[in-house]
Amino acid sequence: MTDRLPAGFGRDEAGQLLVAGRSAGDWVRQAGDTPLFLYDGALLTARVQAFRATLPPELGLHYAVKANPYPPLLAHMAGLVDGFDVASAGEMDKALAAGMTAAHVSFAGPGKRDRELEAAVRTGVTLNVESAGELERLAAIAGRLARPARVALRVNPPFALKGSGMKMGGAASPFGVDAADAGPLLTRMAEAPFEFRGLHLFAGSQNLSVEAILQSQRQSVALSAQLLAEAGLQAPLINLGGGFGVPYFPGDTELDLGALGAGLAEILAERPPVLAGSRFALELGRWLVAEAGVYLCRITDIKQSGGEIFLVTDGGLHHQLAATGNFGTVIRRNYPVVNASRDSSARGPVSVVGCLCTPLDRLAEKAQFPESRVGDLVAVFMAGAYGRSASPEAFLGHPPPLERLI
Amino acid sequence: MTDRLPAGFGRDEAGQLLVAGRSAGDWVRQAGDTPLFLYDGALLTARVQAFRATLPPELGLHYAVKANPYPPLLAHMAGLVDGFDVASAGEMDKALAAGMTAAHVSFAGPGKRDRELEAAVRTGVTLNVESAGELERLAAIAGRLARPARVALRVNPPFALKGSGMKMGGAASPFGVDAADAGPLLTRMAEAPFEFRGLHLFAGSQNLSVEAILQSQRQSVALSAQLLAEAGLQAPLINLGGGFGVPYFPGDTELDLGALGAGLAEILAERPPVLAGSRFALELGRWLVAEAGVYLCRITDIKQSGGEIFLVTDGGLHHQLAATGNFGTVIRRNYPVVNASRDSSARGPVSVVGCLCTPLDRLAEKAQFPESRVGDLVAVFMAGAYGRSASPEAFLGHPPPLERLI
Repeated sequence: MTDRLPAGFGRDEAGQLLVAGRSAGDWVRQAGDTPLFLYDGALLTARVQAFRATLPPELGLHYAVKANPYPPLLAHMAGLVDGFDVASAGEMDKALAAGMTAAHVSFAGPGKRDRELEAAVRTGVTLNVESAGELERLAAIAGRLARPARVALRVNPPFALKGSGMKMGGAASPFGVDAADAGPLLTRMAEAPFEFRGLHLFAGSQNLSVEAILQSQRQSVALSAQLLAEAGLQAPLINLGGGFGVPYFPGDTELDLGALGAGLAEILAERPPVLAGSRFALELGRWLVAEAGVYLCRITDIKQSGGEIFLVTDGGLHHQLAATGNFGTVIRRNYPVVNASRDSSARGPVSVVGCLCTPLDRLAEKAQFPESRVGDLVAVFMAGAYGRSASPEAFLGHPPPLERLI
Repeated sequence: MTDRLPAGFGRDEAGQLLVAGRSAGDWVRQAGDTPLFLYDGALLTARVQAFRATLPPELGLHYAVKANPYPPLLAHMAGLVDGFDVASAGEMDKALAAGMTAAHVSFAGPGKRDRELEAAVRTGVTLNVESAGELERLAAIAGRLARPARVALRVNPPFALKGSGMKMGGAASPFGVDAADAGPLLTRMAEAPFEFRGLHLFAGSQNLSVEAILQSQRQSVALSAQLLAEAGLQAPLINLGGGFGVPYFPGDTELDLGALGAGLAEILAERPPVLAGSRFALELGRWLVAEAGVYLCRITDIKQSGGEIFLVTDGGLHHQLAATGNFGTVIRRNYPVVNASRDSSARGPVSVVGCLCTPLDRLAEKAQFPESRVGDLVAVFMAGAYGRSASPEAFLGHPPPLERLI
């Protein structure tokens, strides 16, 4: 038995993990230290190309910056996708600095502050408005600045994306306005100081079921048409949200992009007339970047306790909170984790732990590893999304990790 | 019904929360913005004084820096406690910068790197050694530097602190060496290049049962005596770990410090002769600082969805991960959370959410709040420990919170 590696990664003859054709050890030597996040630009590009080749042409592709805001990765993505979706003025600044034009940036978030609304009006990004109160604050700011505010209405879908890692519809929610309350806001958005840009619906994330995604997208398109028809408006852009999942765990399978593309093409082809002139976009984060990233850390100690073997590394939950099962997880399961320095068919169970002085810091439990040595590198896959920026980096005072787009 | 506030906090006649005798609004005006962490120095001092007045004099008090490494708070604590326990070279630097002398700093952690061991030998802090491998690396470093290494042996206790929020004994563990393996390491520590400082045992944390804490401390003292007697060594210091919990949730009650003090005095009075010359220390983090801290954020929006009321704030899990139930928690429960700007007996259920664009970002669910307005301040208590530094501050690109020791 040897490791089943995610697509795009391999081993050299000596058993070292290959990332973008070079060994993990080479990458670490070049970067100068561990822990090290590597993001494979060719895998990012290939993912976008697969989307373009398979999804219908009316469907644009946005990148959700929250998944990974590393500036070189943003600059890479800016050249590939049709827009960036951001969730704060800080992310907006990064999106613009990465080369995305303001006309293709939209800004969602339930708690936007006045200073954020003002910055968005000044730069001309589209604000996905989350409530009547936010719209009125925005009207005042746009009036004061004597500039139009580009707005889209975020609607809380009355349906959920079934089986999602995170559901964001079909229930009371702080995100967007309930569909029943959308009418007056849409009417208001058709007037100065607003420039109406469209709708935003986000029903869930991290979903691996083509059927569930298509069902929620069919509902999203129908709801969009209904709301626009009732308001007597046409929308330049319908942001249909995300939801495309990635396979973290044994038994998970990659989304069938072909089936998704065919289903979405049919949904868009059959859309009601009010949507005839609209463009559409999917807002994907995790699906675009998770699998292109790998986190490399080094074994600093190997110890036995109570008959178990612990590989202690210089990495940990301060860089990889989700991989340790401590972020939005109910049942802890191992991400794909391997010894990146050696491979063999002789295996035994180990726990891979981080360097933090807390029992929460476990990168893998009862993983099958070859006999490992102090100094070996450990690779945690699926590290391109919700890694460094979604982790408590300052916890216990260790230095920040390195990051490289390769 | 009005809020039951944690000890040390009150309300003025207008219903505003009082922190150290001034209103929350005053503190925010003075600091200039929200979100704002306030740490009440008088409450910190009072907590240490309560310990001193109640616990036996042989029992020193160490502060576990990981609970809150805010430099002004560290400087305050440095003048009050007998030592600092740190978990990285970064925390060691902060401890020394805060004015704690190296002789009273000890450094634990399962994945110490060579550069960290070297820094510790150079500064003269005590290293709580976690494995045979670490001890040999340390021997090489001390030899190369021609300086003695101050060492204590961290022992993985063969018993757990029952009912702890986090158990750290009684099972296979990456922390310390199993008691059965301690003998050869203790023998080695008695020789150059080592200076033997004692033992470190940590059986669990966040425990509210006097009986459970006393039972584990009785076992820790007995185990320490046994290991030292078998090795023919005396120990300057036995670090008995932590475990003192604080009441986060309804139904939790404060630890009975008097009963703890009496029980610990008895345990120490009856200690075996090999420990006659030893000093002892408890290593407390959360218990010393959690209740002295409050996190203030501001309501930016109030919305209804699906019949529920959401108070949207400018705070969130990027500063308060544990309060949102996303850090080491199985069942999410509300921390004490109140409207800090107004109080009244008329109440209704609300959800208090943060500004992050993720459904994980909930500071309170179905909390009983007075009728609130946009602009009101919300206070999250128990914010002195595992707040800012234990949260993913960069997540979604919002600015850092403010912190003040008052």
